[in-house]
Amino acid sequence: MLETLSIGKIATLMALGSESDIRNIRKKAENGGYKVYKGCVGSMDSAKIFAAIETAAKKEELIKPLYREEHSIYHSILDAYSAICRGQEGLGAVLRTAGLVYSIVRGPRIPEEINDGEWVAVVLYGNMGAPTKGYEHEVIGLGVNPI
Amino acid sequence: MLETLSIGKIATLMALGSESDIRNIRKKAENGGYKVYKGCVGSMDSAKIFAAIETAAKKEELIKPLYREEHSIYHSILDAYSAICRGQEGLGAVLRTAGLVYSIVRGPRIPEEINDGEWVAVVLYGNMGAPTKGYEHEVIGLGVNPI
Amino acid sequence: MLETLSIGKIATLMALGSESDIRNIRKKAENGGYKVYKGCVGSMDSAKIFAAIETAAKKEELIKPLYREEHSIYHSILDAYSAICRGQEGLGAVLRTAGLVYSIVRGPRIPEEINDGEWVAVVLYGNMGAPTKGYEHEVIGLGVNPI
Amino acid sequence: MLETLSIGKIATLMALGSESDIRNIRKKAENGGYKVYKGCVGSMDSAKIFAAIETAAKKEELIKPLYREEHSIYHSILDAYSAICRGQEGLGAVLRTAGLVYSIVRGPRIPEEINDGEWVAVVLYGNMGAPTKGYEHEVIGLGVNPI
Amino acid sequence: MLETLSIGKIATLMALGSESDIRNIRKKAENGGYKVYKGCVGSMDSAKIFAAIETAAKKEELIKPLYREEHSIYHSILDAYSAICRGQEGLGAVLRTAGLVYSIVRGPRIPEEINDGEWVAVVLYGNMGAPTKGYEHEVIGLGVNPI
Amino acid sequence: MLETLSIGKIATLMALGSESDIRNIRKKAENGGYKVYKGCVGSMDSAKIFAAIETAAKKEELIKPLYREEHSIYHSILDAYSAICRGQEGLGAVLRTAGLVYSIVRGPRIPEEINDGEWVAVVLYGNMGAPTKGYEHEVIGLGVNPI
Repeated sequence: MLETLSIGKIATLMALGSESDIRNIRKKAENGGYKVYKGCVGSMDSAKIFAAIETAAKKEELIKPLYREEHSIYHSILDAYSAICRGQEGLGAVLRTAGLVYSIVRGPRIPEEINDGEWVAVVLYGNMGAPTKGYEHEVIGLGVNPI
Repeated sequence: MLETLSIGKIATLMALGSESDIRNIRKKAENGGYKVYKGCVGSMDSAKIFAAIETAAKKEELIKPLYREEHSIYHSILDAYSAICRGQEGLGAVLRTAGLVYSIVRGPRIPEEINDGEWVAVVLYGNMGAPTKGYEHEVIGLGVNPI
Repeated sequence: MLETLSIGKIATLMALGSESDIRNIRKKAENGGYKVYKGCVGSMDSAKIFAAIETAAKKEELIKPLYREEHSIYHSILDAYSAICRGQEGLGAVLRTAGLVYSIVRGPRIPEEINDGEWVAVVLYGNMGAPTKGYEHEVIGLGVNPI
Repeated sequence: MLETLSIGKIATLMALGSESDIRNIRKKAENGGYKVYKGCVGSMDSAKIFAAIETAAKKEELIKPLYREEHSIYHSILDAYSAICRGQEGLGAVLRTAGLVYSIVRGPRIPEEINDGEWVAVVLYGNMGAPTKGYEHEVIGLGVNPI
Repeated sequence: MLETLSIGKIATLMALGSESDIRNIRKKAENGGYKVYKGCVGSMDSAKIFAAIETAAKKEELIKPLYREEHSIYHSILDAYSAICRGQEGLGAVLRTAGLVYSIVRGPRIPEEINDGEWVAVVLYGNMGAPTKGYEHEVIGLGVNPI
Repeated sequence: MLETLSIGKIATLMALGSESDIRNIRKKAENGGYKVYKGCVGSMDSAKIFAAIETAAKKEELIKPLYREEHSIYHSILDAYSAICRGQEGLGAVLRTAGLVYSIVRGPRIPEEINDGEWVAVVLYGNMGAPTKGYEHEVIGLGVNPI
């Protein structure tokens, strides 16, 4: 699925792929100049989702310890979070929970673009639903910002 | 990427895949009891996106001509549209445009779930940005509803 | 249904009632110190709903030609409109239309409250749905503001 | 007020009516093929409103213990909740509280519609305001979804 | 900056000014018939911002202990709060915090307007950002309502 | 009012100031390493506000002709626009109009911050209201993004 590379497609396929898919995606992405990371987080408390991804991004050195970079990844998370909420923000506040994997990708928006610098993409993918086992369906969200 | 099937994953991979990927995804999905369709639409006028997808769903017989079914696909489109707008709805109204592919998938939420009936998923994937060539980045949205 | 009076209940029953119900509601409401009006408006263009109600309110003298009063009724309309949109604003922009009756009620929030002055309530009630005959379901919205 | 029946009108009148009104509405509704329930809930914590209504719907057997049905009533509650919030979601988070009655109605959208199946409506009606006695005004919200 | 007076400009300059600026602004504003107040509040809990301003408004007698007046200032705070959140409401829920000064101004919308009564403006000004020292940028919000 | 400089404060004072104030603000801002611009735009069509500011930013060379920079100013405008709409987006769609001045400021978030690069702030200030002369009150919005 990666004949052509772009930051959002890489992030989405990272989030959806199985472990063996990811080895392959990671290799193509790293050859194209991207840094990638995948983790998981589940909560009724939306702040925990933000904290898990920001912490991973710093620890895995996908962002430098500068406010400019933290601002970019924060807004990528916020965009992805708004997307999975689809117009009515909130998890526990509206009695729903989310079990998610997330991916973080840093690199060119599309390869070989001139003077376009680095961007950061965050994808959230998983299930959202009632706090009852199996009462949930899939959601996906993507945020992309210049870094 | 389709060792396990689920309606949202199929819809997302349909939207992201190249023509040859799609032949493969379509085969696995149809074997799993899904109907799938992929099209494209680009506009600054959000209503055109809704109209294109609803029209395709009817013409391709992914929904029956009943209000219950139209209501389900409408809300899947609305959810996906809210997701690509990420908290601030509107395309032309906030001077941005979207060039999108979309997929429609009808079938089980996850295979072999008992008494869970049929669901419909819509994915919007593409680029959103300024009405200037190349000034755009990727967006993705997914809506899933029982039908 | 009007053993006890309140501005929102009067406005809601005005909007839901048949012609004969309304004669009765109007009588009880006017005895309780309320001015009431009922009209209808249907459109895919949300601005026409605002214009119809503001025009009726002025013509029927439910508001005086002062900005303070126009501000109050505007926000009652905006509240009722947000309510019928349920988190995702827009009619034609998201390919849906509304056929509505509306009521405007001016008077006490609840009778015999001291130093509570006059309030204005607007109710929108009707059907919202696809621009296809019969593909629609009921919506209701209420806005209440001091005047 | 019930010369003609529709699911939203029944739910609204159930919510607004006194005990004696409700006996009459219930009888007409049940003759028309509807199941109805009325309860009350008050909180600054929006999740409690969702929980109270979902619990009642299950206990009173207005929904079956299936995700499809839980999804429908959840979205009817979410729609009604968005409506009473009128564009700015949140109760305690924006220092306001709500004292509400709610109604749940299951049955035809409008009687004698062919191939239109069952729908579920939820109405929230009551007062919203500051956490100070009497500092509040009426709000109403309605959500309707196929089940 | 106050050759001409208006309620929103006074509130904004009060919020931005240093202590010596404020003495001057206050004098001009009070000569023009305005009451003014400035305080500060910082929190990840949005309810605390509402509570701090409502309490100050009552204690400093910028509003009378009547629901009509409380309703006006509440909506001015809610408008200003929505403005600083810029489309995606929430502070702690989306892992951000705000350190703010606020101003409350009561008086004419613009001086010498006939039959226009009194209005109340609230400005929130300060920094919003991550819960990390210095990782924040400025925000401003203004709400204006008739009282 | 500019004993200490910050990008949002400069943009706000530029927007509020008279012509003579602005000469002074501009001088202090330019000494601190900022580029500033002030213009005006009024419309019921929100897209015109975006277009006017983007066009001015390019023409006045506050941004370079690169997508990264256009993305930053676009989001500063979108943030400021969301702020003046206070939770319910739309101008003409909800029958209101805005007469605005705007300022664009490029430079340090706060002077002498290390490794913090350049930021862009946009302020919208003016009146919003009914399309009737004088039926309007003040609004203000600020957006700040790294560039």
